[in-house]
Amino acid sequence: MSHIDFQTDPARYRHWKLRIEGPIAHLIMDVDAQAGLFPGYELKLNSYDLGVDIELADAVQRLRFEHPGVRAVVLRSGKDNVFCAGANIRMLAGASHGHKVNFCKFTNETRMGIEDSAENSGQHFLAAVSGACAGGGYEIAMTAEHIMLIDDRRSTVALPETPLLAVLPGTGGLTRLTDKRRVRRDRADVFCSIEEGMRGKRAIEWRLVDEIVPPSQWEAKVAARAAALAATSDRPTDATGIALTPLTRGFRDDGLAYTHVDVAYDRLARRATLTLRGPHGLPADLAGIHAEGAAFWPLALARELDDAILHLRLNEPDLGMLVFRSHGDPARVLAADALLERHKADWLVREIRHYLKRVLKRVDLTSRSLIALVEPGSCFAGTLAELVFAADRSLMFAGKRGADPHLATLALSPLNFGAYPMSNGLTRLQTRFLGEPDSLTAAETRLGTALDAETADEMGLITVAYDDVDWEGEVRMLLEERASFSADALTAMEANLRFAGPETMETRIFGRLTAWQNWVFQRPNAVGPEGALKRYGSGIQPVYDQNRV
Amino acid sequence: MSHIDFQTDPARYRHWKLRIEGPIAHLIMDVDAQAGLFPGYELKLNSYDLGVDIELADAVQRLRFEHPGVRAVVLRSGKDNVFCAGANIRMLAGASHGHKVNFCKFTNETRMGIEDSAENSGQHFLAAVSGACAGGGYEIAMTAEHIMLIDDRRSTVALPETPLLAVLPGTGGLTRLTDKRRVRRDRADVFCSIEEGMRGKRAIEWRLVDEIVPPSQWEAKVAARAAALAATSDRPTDATGIALTPLTRGFRDDGLAYTHVDVAYDRLARRATLTLRGPHGLPADLAGIHAEGAAFWPLALARELDDAILHLRLNEPDLGMLVFRSHGDPARVLAADALLERHKADWLVREIRHYLKRVLKRVDLTSRSLIALVEPGSCFAGTLAELVFAADRSLMFAGKRGADPHLATLALSPLNFGAYPMSNGLTRLQTRFLGEPDSLTAAETRLGTALDAETADEMGLITVAYDDVDWEGEVRMLLEERASFSADALTAMEANLRFAGPETMETRIFGRLTAWQNWVFQRPNAVGPEGALKRYGSGIQPVYDQNRV
Repeated sequence: MSHIDFQTDPARYRHWKLRIEGPIAHLIMDVDAQAGLFPGYELKLNSYDLGVDIELADAVQRLRFEHPGVRAVVLRSGKDNVFCAGANIRMLAGASHGHKVNFCKFTNETRMGIEDSAENSGQHFLAAVSGACAGGGYEIAMTAEHIMLIDDRRSTVALPETPLLAVLPGTGGLTRLTDKRRVRRDRADVFCSIEEGMRGKRAIEWRLVDEIVPPSQWEAKVAARAAALAATSDRPTDATGIALTPLTRGFRDDGLAYTHVDVAYDRLARRATLTLRGPHGLPADLAGIHAEGAAFWPLALARELDDAILHLRLNEPDLGMLVFRSHGDPARVLAADALLERHKADWLVREIRHYLKRVLKRVDLTSRSLIALVEPGSCFAGTLAELVFAADRSLMFAGKRGADPHLATLALSPLNFGAYPMSNGLTRLQTRFLGEPDSLTAAETRLGTALDAETADEMGLITVAYDDVDWEGEVRMLLEERASFSADALTAMEANLRFAGPETMETRIFGRLTAWQNWVFQRPNAVGPEGALKRYGSGIQPVYDQNRV
Repeated sequence: MSHIDFQTDPARYRHWKLRIEGPIAHLIMDVDAQAGLFPGYELKLNSYDLGVDIELADAVQRLRFEHPGVRAVVLRSGKDNVFCAGANIRMLAGASHGHKVNFCKFTNETRMGIEDSAENSGQHFLAAVSGACAGGGYEIAMTAEHIMLIDDRRSTVALPETPLLAVLPGTGGLTRLTDKRRVRRDRADVFCSIEEGMRGKRAIEWRLVDEIVPPSQWEAKVAARAAALAATSDRPTDATGIALTPLTRGFRDDGLAYTHVDVAYDRLARRATLTLRGPHGLPADLAGIHAEGAAFWPLALARELDDAILHLRLNEPDLGMLVFRSHGDPARVLAADALLERHKADWLVREIRHYLKRVLKRVDLTSRSLIALVEPGSCFAGTLAELVFAADRSLMFAGKRGADPHLATLALSPLNFGAYPMSNGLTRLQTRFLGEPDSLTAAETRLGTALDAETADEMGLITVAYDDVDWEGEVRMLLEERASFSADALTAMEANLRFAGPETMETRIFGRLTAWQNWVFQRPNAVGPEGALKRYGSGIQPVYDQNRV
């Protein structure tokens, strides 16, 4: 069974080189033009497809876990004359709408991940731009805290999507221009309207780059700037990284099994059920966490859930619903949370918490209906309860099920109150209770308590509770009804309802910019037979319908 | 020449009745099913098309200007059994993508206008919902500060778009649910998934309505609530309204002439040039302003510009660029601004300022490229300078043009620093200078000064200055180049670049929600031959592509 695989490791990279020199890592983009994910295009000029970004995401992740001593990362190109030409146009022209949208979403998440490394993990990124840096290439550069541009009269930064391709700088470009780099809006308009890009003093004055450097001083200045960035880091100096060992996965026709996560497909009903298993043994202390490394349950679970979500997004577009179930001892999940809370100052525990945060955001941003079923025998406590709060609907079993002596319970831990902010900067509970802040305060007084369905319902923590008489019928009805709605209307509705409250650069990228890009990706001016994406490179001008909408 | 006309008056209303009883106005929706804007559909069950909303917008506007004594407005239905069934589905199914999008935009602006009346004009809206209130009907009700629902076991509120029509509650519905009424997200998901709507205690508990009232007490309670709302108003008790007299308009094949605004089309070049003329005489004092009424230059200009923008949006979709020019004495524009500033406590002046604010927002939200040309003889000062700051690009003439002794100047007034916030809550200058707050402070020290091109350029107030040698060629090149880009890519790019900085409910509606709705309006599940909009009412189920994107 052929599918897009999100697992890789440096030994298998085709497009990136990772060179580590003490506290400085060099992450070098050197795309193998012949190693595209699909046939039909060559990845010329360091242009990229999803496969290139899967390696980048892997490298960014490994830098955090495997290289605690790395304090600054220099993003650069391994090619002469070009930093990165952006997303590959022939790939975009040939890809389905769904692939384009999910490709952009993943690259956006990877870029947010780079910014998260700098902000929360003390791994600071520097973009050392030599050669043409266009479109997605400049969008990658903008994730760095500092952009250096070599002043060699050839190297430029550019966002030529609108004039050249009739699409947007849609993987964060427009938003980072105005929100992160705060480029004046009319200058941003000029910059996004010219194919050839900008360089020199004007690039500085317009805040497009932070520094221009003569070629004679280039390597020395890059090294000095990387060292200066590294000096601002709070990463440990004497720590040993842990290896992100290969995941154990079993692919079946009707699902996918990991160690702690099982994914079962019901293709006819168009859903995947993800069952998460709680921890069995847990280490006693911090040394034990480090000794377990990638096998430590919270980290292992995060990696498996992350991979499962990505697999479903890209390889199983027909499964429109993700049903979350869990199985295990809630007390042990709370014990795992207690470890994560007690040792949060440790660099590895910090990484695990931030990774869980990113995986949960990935769930929020997944355009599938999310349903959580809280049943007897489940362990939706603390970190796992976040999935209940991430769900569009959460159903909880009230009372006993047949002869089973267990009651379904939900439990909160300190990690539900700050460790896992959503893209909007709020916790899922804060977002949930925007209209009733008292409910949030009340929830915080019940830390660690096993809450039964009636209590969870009263506290507003679930959508609805059903007893043994109604459970099966109600669950079936919900799932059947949901599966009958238009996939697109659900995607758009969920994208709006999931993120109430404040906006951040992140929600603007995933909400506003992405929605506009999705729209543009549907329009004949971009994707029609005479559109710009199809005609790019053919020498024939695209034909546009110039009616304004 | 047949076109959609945005001018109307109560004597011509087909769909609304306005009944005024002292401080209370009753705005009664009673749609004439046979009086749709286009053939091919009947406006049954108080469903609406753009024509219905044009009358609503007119009524809301006249209430502010013509009825200073009205302190509360009761929105209600003139039909038994139905409050409003929302946008007419057959109209939507038959309309072009561009018409749908612009129809939604205008209805959104009208709804924002209702909220603006309550917030800034002391005219408080109450929705008295009796009968089914679905989709766009409930979206209208949600604009009110208070929603009363009659508890007659038949009357419900509903947002059935997703299950019924495969589109979104996209004219503010989803956003007002989460942001204004702060309905819990999973409850919002439930509510938006059921066709039949909600009523009774649950509608209150879920914050969908504010009050349910038994039929026997309905009229008395509505009257009491309206009186209570009226009591909170700061509107004058002894003022006389001014009449919003018919606009003087001359339609030509190649343009449209008002008293203070001329619109010239260049269809080949796909642009409209709007030339705004500054004031000649101005009243000496407040009494003079009231005496001039609708002829007072700032108000007359606002009405003409508003009508011109709407006309261009709906009737001239091929004109992708709006070029703003002006002609007149900048000192007189500043004198008009001084009147608006000196008398801002007066109810009429307050209305004029807020109306100018709304018209300028309408400009921001217009999906055409906006270009301002600041030339010798122009009068872009104060309020008119907002158009320069609203533009995607502003070009200013440096030095003298031929034998003309005038220099092009730009001037700021106090009104540029707070009177006209954009949808994001910031002034256009604040938005412009997000990345350089010092420039904002510096601008404020130059109030009233005639700034030449070099100075305006240095201060960051314009995009670029050209002298006599370059002006003509550069302007032509910009306009030609812009006209060659994809209309869709420009629309999406401008929608992202124009609104940097903070988000508000308004930007979320016009940015995120609208973009998703536009996307959905492109998808076959909604608009294809087997889609839900086309098959609605046919008795045949729609066929959906259930791939998730």
